[in-house]
Parts: sequence; C-alpha cells; structure tokens
Amino acid sequence: MLSKTIADRLKGFETPFYLYDIDLLRRTLRACADESSRYGYRVHYAIKANYDPRILEEIRSFGLGIDAVSGNEVRRGIECGFPARDIVYAGVGKSDKEIRYSIEQDIFAFNCESFHELEIIDGIAADMGRKVRVALRINPDVDPKTHKYISTGQADSKFGISYTEIDRIRERMPQWKNIEIVGLHFHVGSQIVDLSVFAKLCERVNELWAWFADSGFRFSYVNVGGGLGINYGDPEGEPIPDFAGYFAVFREHLHLGPGVEVHFELGRSIVGQCGELISRVLFHKTTASGKRVAIVDASMTELLRPALYQARHAIENLSGGDKRETYIIGGTVCESSDIFARDLELPVLHRGDLVSLKSAGAYGAAMASTYNLHDLPGAVYSDRLTE
Amino acid sequence: MLSKTIADRLKGFETPFYLYDIDLLRRTLRACADESSRYGYRVHYAIKANYDPRILEEIRSFGLGIDAVSGNEVRRGIECGFPARDIVYAGVGKSDKEIRYSIEQDIFAFNCESFHELEIIDGIAADMGRKVRVALRINPDVDPKTHKYISTGQADSKFGISYTEIDRIRERMPQWKNIEIVGLHFHVGSQIVDLSVFAKLCERVNELWAWFADSGFRFSYVNVGGGLGINYGDPEGEPIPDFAGYFAVFREHLHLGPGVEVHFELGRSIVGQCGELISRVLFHKTTASGKRVAIVDASMTELLRPALYQARHAIENLSGGDKRETYIIGGTVCESSDIFARDLELPVLHRGDLVSLKSAGAYGAAMASTYNLHDLPGAVYSDRLTE
Repeated sequence: MLSKTIADRLKGFETPFYLYDIDLLRRTLRACADESSRYGYRVHYAIKANYDPRILEEIRSFGLGIDAVSGNEVRRGIECGFPARDIVYAGVGKSDKEIRYSIEQDIFAFNCESFHELEIIDGIAADMGRKVRVALRINPDVDPKTHKYISTGQADSKFGISYTEIDRIRERMPQWKNIEIVGLHFHVGSQIVDLSVFAKLCERVNELWAWFADSGFRFSYVNVGGGLGINYGDPEGEPIPDFAGYFAVFREHLHLGPGVEVHFELGRSIVGQCGELISRVLFHKTTASGKRVAIVDASMTELLRPALYQARHAIENLSGGDKRETYIIGGTVCESSDIFARDLELPVLHRGDLVSLKSAGAYGAAMASTYNLHDLPGAVYSDRLTE
Repeated sequence: MLSKTIADRLKGFETPFYLYDIDLLRRTLRACADESSRYGYRVHYAIKANYDPRILEEIRSFGLGIDAVSGNEVRRGIECGFPARDIVYAGVGKSDKEIRYSIEQDIFAFNCESFHELEIIDGIAADMGRKVRVALRINPDVDPKTHKYISTGQADSKFGISYTEIDRIRERMPQWKNIEIVGLHFHVGSQIVDLSVFAKLCERVNELWAWFADSGFRFSYVNVGGGLGINYGDPEGEPIPDFAGYFAVFREHLHLGPGVEVHFELGRSIVGQCGELISRVLFHKTTASGKRVAIVDASMTELLRPALYQARHAIENLSGGDKRETYIIGGTVCESSDIFARDLELPVLHRGDLVSLKSAGAYGAAMASTYNLHDLPGAVYSDRLTE
C-alpha cells in the first residue's frame, strides 16, 4: 500500500508506467539468498522475467547468477556486470550465432534440449577450438498441477530431452569431443504454489540421477529449474514467497550424494511482487447489460498476461475512498481480451484516479509491445521517489 | 508459392523476417478499391493490422484513408502522407494528449465510445477553441459467430455505446457546443467469413438509423466497421478476400436513404495474405510420446496470434521434397503456448530449411515484442527481390 503522499506524487507522471519497490526487491533477494545459501544452493535469476538494468543491478549485488534463454539475454547479463561463469543459457531454439557468442563469452553452461542440439553445439565448439560445458534438460513428466500454458514438463511438450533420446545420447557421447556433459537440468513449469509438486520432482530427479549413474554418466551439478509461484490474489499479505519452505523441500527430498551442486533458476518469485503497473482512469461507461466499465490507459501492450493467460492481477484504486462499486476494468486496445478485471469491487473510480495492477514485476514490462503503436511503458523506482 | 530461385535467395537472409508480396498487396488493394468505389463506398485502412511504412505507402497510393486507434497511429498516418481529412480515430481509451494532437491535426472524425468520452472531447475542443466531428460507436449486439476474443459487439463488451447511454447523449447534445455528431459507427468483430453476419448488421444499422432519425439525430455518414476475414486455411487458393461479395451485402441490405456516406474500416482483409513470416529450422527432436518436433527460429515474439488466439497459420517448407512427415512446429520461446502447429504433415524438415508461416501480414509484425530480448523481425519486400 503506497502512502498518500507518494500516491499523489505519482499523479504527476505520464501513465502508464511500471513502479518498482526496490526495498521489497531487496528483502525478497535477501530471503532468497539466505534460504538458498543455508544449503549451499546456487540461484540463477531467470532474466526473461524482467531485464530492466536497474533490477538486474540489485539482483547482481546479491550474488545471483543469470539464467538466459537467448543470446541477447546472455549479452544483457554480461553488460550488467554478471560474470560469464555465473550465466547459463537454456531454451529450445538456440541459433548458431547465439551459441557462438555464448561460447566466446565462456558462460558456465548450456542447458541442451535435444540430441540434435548437442550435436550442433559440439560441432560449433569444434570449429572454434573450444570445449563447452553442457547440461541435459530432461523432460521429467511431472504434472505441475498448473495452467496448461505454463506447464512445460509433459510428454508431448517441445521442451527437454525425452527418454527416447537418452540412449542415443549415451551412445554418441564418446564421439563428442568438444562438449562435456556436466549436469542435468529440469523444469516443471511456472507459478507453482503447491510445494508437493517440487517434492515429486525431487523423487523423479533422484530416480533419473541414479539411472544416469548406473548408465555411466557422472555429473557435477543438477539444475532443478524454478517455477516457484507468487500470491497474485493477496500480494500485500504475501509479498515475499516462501523461499524457506521451497528450498527445504529440496533439502528434504533430493538425494544425489555428496559434492553435487544444486542450481535453481528463479524469476517470478524474485521480481513478481516488487513491480506494479500504474495507469489512469480515462472514462467510465455502462454496458448494455448494466455493468459499469472503467477504461484505464494501460492495456495488453504493457501487461499481456491477462489477455494471454487469462491471468488476474489484484487491482487497487490508489485514490481510495469509502464508497465502492463493481467494475469491469478495460484496457485501451481494440481487443475483447484486453480486460484486466470483471466484477471487481473497488472504491468508486473517478476520471484521473490512478489504478495499480499488482504483482506485475515479472512478465510485465518484459512482454510489452508497441501494438497499436503504443509507446513502451517507462519505469519508476521507489527509492528515487521521496516523501 | 515462391519460385525455387527466390526461395534459395531467401536462405541468405537472417531469419526470422517478414516477407511481403507487394504484387499481391496491390492486387488486393485494386480489388478493394474497385469493388468499394462501385457503390461510392469509402474505405479506411485499420492501421493497427500493420503499420509498416512501405505497406502504408502502397495503401495510400490506392486512395484509402486511415482508421487509427491511438494518437501514435494518427501520427504514423500523417507522417506517411495520408491527408488528415482521411483519418478517423477510434478506440475505447483515448488520452487527453492523443485527443489534443488529433484535434490539432484536424482529422476527419473521432469515433466515440461513451457519453463520458463525448463530454471530455467537447471540453478539450472548447479549450482549444475548435469544433470537432464525432461519430457515435454503437454496440449493435450482433453475434459475430466468431472466436469470443475477437468478437467486440456484445452486451457485456467494453466497446461501443450501449442503448442505456444513448438517451443521456440525446439530452446532453444541445449543450455540447464544440462537437458535432455527424455519424454512427459500428464494428461487430474480426475475421468474419460468413457474410450473413454483415447482412444482419445492416438490418440492425437500418433499425438504429431510423430510431436516431426519429429521435432528432441527423447524420451524414455511417461507418459499418470492418471484420472481413481471410482464408487462413487455404491462402494460396484464396489470396484475395471476396470484396465483391462483401460490399454487395451492404449495397443490398443497407437502406439509409440518399446522400449518406458509407465508410468501412478494413485491416486484415487488405494486408493479411500479402505477408508471411519466414523462419529457419534449428533442431528436430522426438517427444516422450514419440512425436516429431521441429524447432524453428521464429516464436510468439514475432507472431503472437497462435499463442494468443490459438490461431493456426498455414505452413510451408520452402525447400519442398517428396518424403513427408508429421510434426509439431515449436518456436524458440520458453512457453508451452509457443507452438505454431501440431500434427502437421510437411515435406521432411531438415536443419536450415526455411519454413513460411502464411497469412501473417496482419497482426504479425504489428504485435511483435522483444520478450526474451529477441530482436524485432525485419521486413523484406518482394519487389526488391529479383530472380
């Protein structure tokens, strides 16, 4: 909840824009760093969630690495001061140019998604006279009990190496002279709040780890992915995810033997709650069925999640007020999917009131577009606002 | 179908990129212009479909106007040489700044979406000492028999003025000294291929027109929107939509009396088929369930429609070949929704083959984003490629 003074100051800014609570980001990073270091776990930040340089500066200062999914994300990490040895590059579609750039930079590892990709990386590394560390991303078939669009570990998914390809990899491995398979990588999905999903993942990782060991593979680390969800329904009540519980699950359920490094890639859980999208009420109207609509000056071009995933972000009328009314909150874009809320009760919205869309720090600005020739949204950082 | 020579030349370009068939665009514009002018109809191009300056230059040369949905779209139209008198500005969320800019430019009209918006535009125009032409966008409640996300004319929609607000408008009208209500505007949705939907719209417009006339409104024009669909399933078989049939429906069913100008806003039907997204096969793999996956270097960041609307674009392997196989075609982004096709039979895809996603001229490049820090896709124009 913003103070009245700050809320009033924000009225002077051109809307829409992202407001980042730097203090909350730091407290979140502190919790994540404390709880992961308790077990010697290593966390890579999934930069795709938010690649704002100011946010990255804070993340770097807490010692996290970078989980990148494109050559440009590797580059952004390096430009923002992350050591190359703390950068991993994952993703199903790495181009030759991106692979070559990342080899040049000598990043920590590539998470590889297919036999074919291993073959290609080995070839490029050979051309460059380099030896490259890779991890095998394994499709673990764990049902992530989550929205189908953000579940990535299932049998028919484009992600990961399926069991059918593992034998081929084992056979070919001795011929790949320019890659060293040093780890396994798993990722079961996003926005998972039921920690039992991770316990189940651990059991699967234990089984697979043992199977690979029996098959002659020796790995120095495992990357168990990310996926820890945030509380979209009650961001004020739970501003910082349960990192203690999350890492404890892995401590309890993951049994890989001594000396194995455990890596995590977390995005949403780190930056989700520190960001909100601030917009302004432009118009109100009444639909044919008698519902009240408030049109705000933000839209799916600044925050795509509601249109893309039917995601719902908590909404606050920053001007407050006692009288309440039920609204449809619509964005400016000429698409029926550009709706932020239906049947939402809020303090009565007046033209010019600022409205905050909460929990928008992850996959908010990062997914913005210039559709409708909208300008990209700006960013305001809380520590540069004074009372 | 591209010639083998051209397809080979395209291999030298960095993928992914949009390829625009300028000859097809011209033939489409010729058909649209011929069929609309047959009845004296006026067409505004819905610039949100594609605001590429080269495309706009072609469209302008055929005398179409611009239908804009943001101040920046009005500006793009003007910068690309469209006369301000041929520009209309529609959309539910016009900011004061956008309204002011568009009044300064003296555009043809604003399509207004609420009582509240009329009140605001009247106030801004008064401040500026100007008189502004507006049309009332009426929610016609026509079921567009189409995907729910792109149907915009229903009772609970954020779009248009509902019947409940019309009485208020009529009462207040005499007090609005700085706006002149000169037209009615309707829009029932997008990608409509069943022309009977438009016939039904005409009947509704006739009824409403009569009702407004009885109520003392006098309008000089009606804008019946757009929404004419294209053949996504068979773009080669139907490269140019049935403009003859489309305009003839209005000619047959619209009865507004003599001297009333009829305006259309068409986007997809003009530019949809002239564009295709060209990408390259990076990797292939086999899923746990035994399906073949080809990963191409395009993704939802270049073409969002499949992820956003579960839209399916026809796909061609530009390298051809006799042997065929069934594929999942996946994009590079780490989202399960980033899939272009499932169970699609194509000539066997080899690494490096170019793959075309057809019918991507509308809502393709215009909706691109830099998510995953992807570069925005470039554009190649067919008339600058020589055999």
